[in-house]
Order: sequence, then structure tokens, then C-alpha cells
Amino acid sequence: IDGVSIAGKLGLGNHYNLVLQSAFFTLAKIIPSQEAAVYMKELAKRTYFAKGEEVVNKNIAAIDQGAANIVTVPIPDSWLTAQDEEQAVDESRPAVVRNLADPINRQKGDDLPVSAFKGYEDGVIDMGLTAYEKRGIAVQVPVWDSSKCLQCNHCSLVCPHAVIRPFLLTEDEANSAPDGFESIPVKTKPGLRYTLQVSGADCTGCGACVNACLAKDKALSMKPYHEIGPRTEQWNYALNLSEKGDVFNPWTIKGSQFHQPLVEFSAACAGCGEPPYAKLLTQLFGDRVYWANATGCSQAWGSPMPGIPYTTNRYGRGPAWSNSLFENNAEFSLGMALSVKKQREMQKMTAEQLLELDVPADLKSSIEAWLAAYNDFDQSRVTGDALVAQLESCEASCEKAQALVQKLLRHKDQFARKTFWMFGGDGWAYDIGFGGLDHVLASGENLNVFIVDTEVYSNTGGQSSKATPIGAVAQFASSGKKSPKKDLGAIFMTYGNVYVAQVAMGADPNQLIKAIKEAEEFDGPSILIAYTPCQAHGIKCGMGNTQLEMKRAVEAGYWRLYRYNPTKEKPFTLDSKEPTMSFDEFLDGETRYASLKRTFPANAEEFFTKGADLAKESYQKYKKMEDNQ
Amino acid sequence: IDGVSIAGKLGLGNHYNLVLQSAFFTLAKIIPSQEAAVYMKELAKRTYFAKGEEVVNKNIAAIDQGAANIVTVPIPDSWLTAQDEEQAVDESRPAVVRNLADPINRQKGDDLPVSAFKGYEDGVIDMGLTAYEKRGIAVQVPVWDSSKCLQCNHCSLVCPHAVIRPFLLTEDEANSAPDGFESIPVKTKPGLRYTLQVSGADCTGCGACVNACLAKDKALSMKPYHEIGPRTEQWNYALNLSEKGDVFNPWTIKGSQFHQPLVEFSAACAGCGEPPYAKLLTQLFGDRVYWANATGCSQAWGSPMPGIPYTTNRYGRGPAWSNSLFENNAEFSLGMALSVKKQREMQKMTAEQLLELDVPADLKSSIEAWLAAYNDFDQSRVTGDALVAQLESCEASCEKAQALVQKLLRHKDQFARKTFWMFGGDGWAYDIGFGGLDHVLASGENLNVFIVDTEVYSNTGGQSSKATPIGAVAQFASSGKKSPKKDLGAIFMTYGNVYVAQVAMGADPNQLIKAIKEAEEFDGPSILIAYTPCQAHGIKCGMGNTQLEMKRAVEAGYWRLYRYNPTKEKPFTLDSKEPTMSFDEFLDGETRYASLKRTFPANAEEFFTKGADLAKESYQKYKKMEDNQ
Repeated sequence: IDGVSIAGKLGLGNHYNLVLQSAFFTLAKIIPSQEAAVYMKELAKRTYFAKGEEVVNKNIAAIDQGAANIVTVPIPDSWLTAQDEEQAVDESRPAVVRNLADPINRQKGDDLPVSAFKGYEDGVIDMGLTAYEKRGIAVQVPVWDSSKCLQCNHCSLVCPHAVIRPFLLTEDEANSAPDGFESIPVKTKPGLRYTLQVSGADCTGCGACVNACLAKDKALSMKPYHEIGPRTEQWNYALNLSEKGDVFNPWTIKGSQFHQPLVEFSAACAGCGEPPYAKLLTQLFGDRVYWANATGCSQAWGSPMPGIPYTTNRYGRGPAWSNSLFENNAEFSLGMALSVKKQREMQKMTAEQLLELDVPADLKSSIEAWLAAYNDFDQSRVTGDALVAQLESCEASCEKAQALVQKLLRHKDQFARKTFWMFGGDGWAYDIGFGGLDHVLASGENLNVFIVDTEVYSNTGGQSSKATPIGAVAQFASSGKKSPKKDLGAIFMTYGNVYVAQVAMGADPNQLIKAIKEAEEFDGPSILIAYTPCQAHGIKCGMGNTQLEMKRAVEAGYWRLYRYNPTKEKPFTLDSKEPTMSFDEFLDGETRYASLKRTFPANAEEFFTKGADLAKESYQKYKKMEDNQ
Repeated sequence: IDGVSIAGKLGLGNHYNLVLQSAFFTLAKIIPSQEAAVYMKELAKRTYFAKGEEVVNKNIAAIDQGAANIVTVPIPDSWLTAQDEEQAVDESRPAVVRNLADPINRQKGDDLPVSAFKGYEDGVIDMGLTAYEKRGIAVQVPVWDSSKCLQCNHCSLVCPHAVIRPFLLTEDEANSAPDGFESIPVKTKPGLRYTLQVSGADCTGCGACVNACLAKDKALSMKPYHEIGPRTEQWNYALNLSEKGDVFNPWTIKGSQFHQPLVEFSAACAGCGEPPYAKLLTQLFGDRVYWANATGCSQAWGSPMPGIPYTTNRYGRGPAWSNSLFENNAEFSLGMALSVKKQREMQKMTAEQLLELDVPADLKSSIEAWLAAYNDFDQSRVTGDALVAQLESCEASCEKAQALVQKLLRHKDQFARKTFWMFGGDGWAYDIGFGGLDHVLASGENLNVFIVDTEVYSNTGGQSSKATPIGAVAQFASSGKKSPKKDLGAIFMTYGNVYVAQVAMGADPNQLIKAIKEAEEFDGPSILIAYTPCQAHGIKCGMGNTQLEMKRAVEAGYWRLYRYNPTKEKPFTLDSKEPTMSFDEFLDGETRYASLKRTFPANAEEFFTKGADLAKESYQKYKKMEDNQ
């Protein structure tokens, strides 16, 4: 049964499940197939009632066509006597992949002896394991038309799975590239060429990249994967190109995308709004993020053993990604930050002690340079790396100096300044971890919070959280949520020592990057609340359009963009413009709202009106806040 | 050694401890007494250094005088052959007092067999046990001069231990009163007389009543307890006077004080700011408070077995006082509220079912009256009591009606509407229980929160909380707290469905009563944040002046009074006037601030300036909020 084509033609997108079910019942004859069809159609009516007649009819058609379009696929006679070929050990796959990941992915995890996990008793696992999965689940994958490309890198920015990436290459590298490896000259940078590569085997086929393409006639289009193939050779060639440094400002959409994403090929839903944010953080801060991840979706796709998507760069360095409990992510992050703070202070003290001894002039000036750059994110690494080189080669004048040199080298990871981010959903930040978040932010420590606000407990099936807006249908709120969304940003603005921003990548990616930069530079706690579309919203234009949905959310006044920096003379900046789109139109575009009109029309009327009023009031309040400062 | 007189003369108030210690070392000669004095003086210098030279010198004088003023008290020869008299069982003391409280208070609790606690396995204990303690710990007790009394009842309002109370009596009752029982005519109410009675044996001698007296020449003065005595006969006569109903509006300072306080003679510190608030709640809501008490001081003095101060009225009814954990008080209260809500809804349903049957006309109209008054605090009790009387005497027409009548009577406690209050300190509300408080208030349920904000973890020895203001010295903040006080009221005002007020009894008791009334009437969550002076503040004018200290806090702009009712067209009312007193002068009056000037003068300079600025900004912010609505 060609479920994909049937569902596609019926407008069901990737939902080909029902087509297959119907085919199964027709062939398996567990009950008479006519009878099975009646039951399935009744269930479809009940299940999709809230989503409207059109959806119901499509599903009924899927049941009919699943029964009618079964094709016989002959099995060759040779299969009767086929032998298993012996599989050679692929030494290019790391031991952890061969010994753990591969068997688990083959559903043979239960056969592994306990001893297979030796060395992993503490829960620390190798990074970058998803790169060995190559799931090949996309029906369609993007194909680049270099002649139309603007080199804006928006496609790469929004890709949830980091499967489409721009690279820079020299003319020589372009000339040595494998067949079919296209590149174009970089405008404004003679001698450099630009390419866009796609790892088809890792793509989920959401199409977000095509939708994000700024070229008028689209430089990307979706083509069947079985025609295009994985393009592994080209992808691997691109991954191994020489480093070009920061040719473009890394604090821009374009520049940031030339940095290697250190989270890739995760198990997040196709089109998921969360990983693009996570990916951008790894591109902006590289391997120097201490990442405290809250329980929730970002943990589910961030650490589903053995599918670890967080990865390392060519030097083996990556973010220090970790997850504790739902309720203590902020405290967990604080612990990391205090530990590193103390380690760096110790390193500083040791360096100062060394300075007081008789040390070579070169070493002395290296120490002084590092001490001067102690708190500078970029320079502390540059001067730290130089200092490590000096320390490694120096001849210490005395035993005491030698001991100090060794001590500094033992902790050389702590020369470069780090950045601390807690990352998690609204279930953590608004609800279960809020008490800890409050306490940790009030501490005044230099920590950053990134909330992927899906307005619902996404991972556990869509339960209402305090971030769920009035009128949204969710579990525990099947007749629409009665109370308004908690204004977490407003709450933290009352603290007076917290940097606060609301962002939405699809609405204004430049404002997002600006906010991340300001948060990191702010010497104190920062909190970024990011609007994050989710499968659970029932976005009618599809999960390939989550970025567009963010834009609509802001244009309808449903979500507001702002930045609040208490150290500035005028702390508050409202980045949202006066809403131009109708609030109702936005609600109509998502099943979580639209379904309420059919199930509880009186509630819909009351809650949606109130929601629109609250949105208006909130915008006016923030406008006033900006004007009156 | 007459420690009390010596300490009193030295200006050490009730701190006679050191006088006794010095006398002990002089007599006991464990080490040479001269040497002991040197050690004690050194320790006194170290201990009181932060409090200034004057305090150090007073303590050194106490050590000298304790050694010098020992008096020989002769023991009569007859004591050599004295026999223990047999103690008759005092049947007027309830069994729980005789069998549990008395032995425990005699330090004989360890001798009690496990079987003595039979019947208390669930943790529920009889109320009103402190009334049997009669500790007699006051050195001085208040004495009433009826000729000067204005009958304002401020003395009773502020008394932390409910030992001074006004009563109304008829002429007949006045005539039958025991000797020395004074009373004066009630102005404006002919035929009624007014008396003020003091239970000397329960008084702690703080003098708050005298300080609160509004009469120009003070109608109260402190006199030595050994001269005045307990005045038990007069006190008991007053307690048993007939009920007069609400002669004065109970929602006023004067009127509320004629209601029996249902918390009395607790183990709270002399002058403690917490119990006057708790007491007022019991006077305003009587026996219909479901009281969820947070861990902290209010639990320590609210339920120290066997000293239970919460008590019942003459009908055996009192507040349903209960305590769970530090972290879950809000959730605990929500559980109570939801349970009672369901029970009352069930009662309503049963009553409606009964109405549909053939019932006598009187019963029918009683049911209808109660249903109409279902949500009215006063009328639901009046009509509920009437309905109970009808139900108890009615002849049901059929078996079904009989079953419904019995069901209603089984739950007769739930006819009257209840009010739900969580009560606790800042350690609970700002810190450890904040996550739950946020979640429960966001639920929109009709619950009330009363926070006795002592700005520090009082019960565990004065650790800094998020309510501790910048610059205050506390445990974990010995060099002054670096971050500002969390603005809990501002946070909850962002919710949009929460009634919020800041109050301070000593600054404006009328505003306090108004806020309590509005909070109870508000159909949703309410939160009252009450400024509460504490022993840990080191109030220089003494713990008898905690009410005055609240007034000073508001006059200096250190604390702000306001009420925020989101259902009103102009929700915000600023009840504080523009500050008239110097902020620094207020800080100077409390050791928690003043000591920082000596221990960390640079911090004091920086933090106090910042504190004053923040206080000014905060007042201006609230003023703007009021003006711009």
C-alpha cells in the first residue's frame, strides 16, 4: 500500500497511519473487513469531530482508499534460500556506537549484558551519537538551486535538525570537491565560495527551510528522497573543510550559521520549534555553554539513549549538557555556575602567586594578559590558550613555581570564561521549577535562562500549564483554559536585577540574537522567554510553517517581543509593533483554539473575547512602560 | 540576687540573664570568681561589639553588679521536716490537661506511657490548652484606670497574648460582679457598661497595651505583678458574662475587640508582632476559619504541644487550625478549600432534592432561605442554623425524604459558609512555599493568604530570606544583604485575578481591617502581606513598641500600605502617605541595620543609600500606578 502518496493526495500530509490500518484490516480479516471499516469510520468521526467536517471526511476517504489500493508485491524465489551475509566490523564507527547504540537501535538492547555499560556508571555518555543513526525518514528532502540563492542562511537558522548548513570554501577546496558538489562565489569576499549542503539521511522532511527561504522564487524545493538520495559524500566533504574563522559577524543570522551547530539530528518532531533555539545557542557560544536542561521535550529529544544529538566540534569539545530533575533545573544550574566560579577564582589566585615568583618574561606577560582578560568571553579564551602554550613549554625556576605551573595546567579548561544556560519548557519554568527559578534568579548570580514556551506540557501529552493562555484546549482544560497565561516576564521585571526578554525566532530572528547577546553580557541573571510552536497546537498550516506561525503570533498581538535591561537608563524596549493581524484569525489557525468553537461555543465566545482584550491591554501596558521611562 | 531590679535599673529591660550568671560564678567558685568575671566581660565585648559601646558597658555593669549584690535568703528550719501534701484531683481541669499537659509541663513527659496518647494517634489535639498553664512570667502587668479610659480597645487589639480584653455588661451583671471588678458606662449605649480585664497570670509584661493606649494621660500603667496578682476571679467573671451580640460594628477596631479572641496565651515572644494579626482574624471570622498554618514561628507558638493557644468559644467551636509542611502550605489550604466546596455543593444538591419531595411548608421555606443565602458569610449561618432546627424537628413524609433529612443533618457543619486562610511567614511565602503559593493563587480558587512578614527566618535563628531588605544583617548575610527585598505584592499584581494588599497593624489598623474584609469578600485568591516586627530585628525602643515600629516603618517609606482589587475600575489604592520621617533614622532604630555601620561601614554606606533609593522609587512607582489608572 503506498500510504504516503494516498495520504499526500488526500491532504493528510504525513498522516498515512489510517491508510495502513485500513489495509491491514482488509488483509488480516480478524473481523469482516466491511465491519472493520464501519468501526474505523465511527472512531474517526468521534476523534476528529472537534477538528471539523473537512478533517473527518479526509480520514474517512483514507479508510476507503486504504482498503481499495492494496498492491501485490511479489517476493523473489531466491529469498527462500538466501543466507545472512557476514557483517564486517565498521571501524569508522566508535566503540560506543558499535557496542551500545547500534544494538539498542536494532531493538536488541535487552540482549546487552550489564558489562556492556562498564564505564557509563555515572550517567555520562559520549556525545554526537545521532550522527551515526541515519534514519532516512524523510519522504521529501530539500534540494538547492544555487542560481537563486541569496546566501542569507535563513534556511539553516530554522532547520530543527541541523541537516541543511552553509559552508565557506576556498577555490582549491571547490575544485577538489566530489561530483555534484555545487558552490557559488561569496559576494563581497573574493576568493571564497559558498555552498549549501543537505544531509538527506538525517532530514525529517518538514520543509521549514523551503518556507524560510528569502529568495523570491525560492532557492530550495522539496524533492522525493528516493530520487535525491542521502548525498553523503558531499555532506562529509563539507564537514571536513578547513576552518575559515569569522568571515561574517557571528552575532547575525548569516554569520552565526557558519558556526558548527553542536546539536544535530535529534528525535524532535518534524518542524519542532525547540531545537532551532537550542542549535542557535550552541552556534553562538560554541563549546563554552554549561547547559542545565530541564525535564520535558528538550530532554526527551536531547538525551534519549542512545540518540544523543548534542555533539562536539573537531577538537572534541562540546557544550556540557546535563539534565537533573523537573523541579530543580535552576538550582542544578546554580551549582554548576558556583563550582566553575570557584575553580576560575582558584586558577586566578594560583596565577597571581606564580607572578610573584621569578618567572620568564614571556610567561609573565602571558599571565598578565590572561588576568586582564579574565571576564572577557572571547579574550579569556585567546589569552588562556596562549598561556597554556607558555605553561607547557616553560622551565620553572624553582620547585614552588613548578608546582604552581602544574596546578594551572591541571585546570587549564577553566582559563576561558564559560556561560551558563538553563534550558527548558513552560512546565518547568512557569510551574514545577518556578520556585527554584525564583530563588536562583534572586541570588543575582550571572546565569541565563532560556524558556522554550510551548504553552503546554508538550512531552507528557499536552496538559495545561500556567503558560497556557485563556481559551486554549489542553488536558485538564478540555473546555478551554479559564484563567489567563501567567506573565512570567512581568514577574521577573519586578526583581530589578534580572535581564528579561520575550523573543520569537520566526517573528524577528535579529531581535532574538540581540537578546541572547545582551543576556550573556548582562552581569547578573537573565531570562529569555521564547515563543515555541508545537505539534500539540494543531497548527493548521502545518509543522513546516512553525516559523510563520511565530510571525503571525506577534502580528496578531498574541505574543509580544521586548527586552528589559535594568542597567540601562531606559530599561524597557518594546520590539513588537502595534498588532496588524486579527487576534481571532490567529486563534482560528490552531486547533487548540478553533476546536473550542465546536465543543464549547459559549466558552469560546467568552474566553476568546477576554483573550483578545488581555492581549490588547498587555500591549498597551508595555507601550506605556516604554513611553513613561 | 534580684536580677530583675538590677537589669531594670541598668536599662537592660528583661535581660537579667547576665546578672544571674555572674552571681552563679561568684557563688559556685568553679573557677576563681575574678577570673570568671574577666572571661565573661571579654565575651560580652565580643558578643555586643556590633551593638555599640553603650550596650557593652551595660552588660559589663551587669556582670559587676551580679557579683556584688548577692543577698542571703534564710531557709526556715521547718522545711527540714516538711511533708509533701497530697494533691487532690482538680476535676475542673479537663482530662487532656490532667493526663497530658500537666505532666509534660512539669517536665515529666518522658514518664508518660504510650497508652496516655490513646485517642491522639491522628495528631488531632484538644484546643485551648494554654488557658490551663498560667505561667505567671510577667514582672509587671497592666493596670486599668477606668477614669481615663476612652473605650477605644486599641490595647486589646495589639496585645499579642490576648490577656487584656474589653467586655460589655448589663447593670445587673455589674452589680453582681466580684469585689474590685470595675466598670464604666458605655457612651452612646445606655444600660450597658464597659470593663477592661487583665489576666495577670497569662501576661508576658511587654507593655504593648500601655503604649497603644490612646488616652492622653494613659488609662493603663504597668505595675509589679507581685503587688497586683493574677486577678483570676474578676477575669473568670468577665469570661462568663452573657453574650451581647454586635453592639458595635465588628469590622472596626472597637467592635472587633468585643469578639472573643480564639487564640490566647501563646508561647510567642513578649511583644511579638505575629499573634495580634492571628488573633484579629479569629475575632473577625470566629469559628469559621479553615486555617492552614505554615511552618515557622506561627507554628512554633501556634502548636507547641501541650501549649495549644488556639481555642474554642462557649459552644465548643473554634478555627480548624492545622499545619502541614514548610513547602506545601498553599497546597494544603487548597485541599481544605476544595473538600469543603464539594461538601457544601453536595449539601446543596441534597437540599434541592428534598425540595422536590412533599415536605412541610416551614421546612420548605427554610431550605429556600438557606439556598438563597448559600454564598453569604453571615446569612448562610443564620439560615443554616434555622434549617438545622427545622430538620431536627420535622416529620418526614416518606422514607426517601427521611434519608435526605438525615444526610443533611450528618453534614450540618457545612450549612454555614467558611473562609480559608493560609497563614505563615516570609520564609514560607517568599521562599520555600513560593512555588506552591504561585500555583494555588493562579488556580483562581477563593482562598486567602496572610503573610506575617518578619523579613527573616525568625524561628530558626534569623536566616536571610528573599523578604530580607538590602543592607539588613542576618544569618547568611552577616555583611549585610546584598540584594533588594523581593516585591511579592508586585508579583501577584501581575496575575490579574488576585486581590493584593500590604498592611501594618501599628501603622494603620483601620486599613488592615478594611483589607481583611475586602480579601474575604473578593471572589478569588487574596494575599495580604503584613509588616511584622520581630525580636530578630533588634528594635532599640524595645519589643513593647513593635506597633510604634510599624508606624515608623511606614512614615519612613520603608514599608508601603496599599490595596489592589482587580475587579474595581481603579484597582489600585495607595494607603501610605508620602514619607515624612528619614529613612536612615528608621534604620538606626534597629540593630539589624545599625550594627552594619560598625562591622562593615562601607557596605552600610552603599546598601543603605541603595535601600533608601529603592524605597523612594517604589513609593513613586506605586503613586504613579494609582494616578495613571
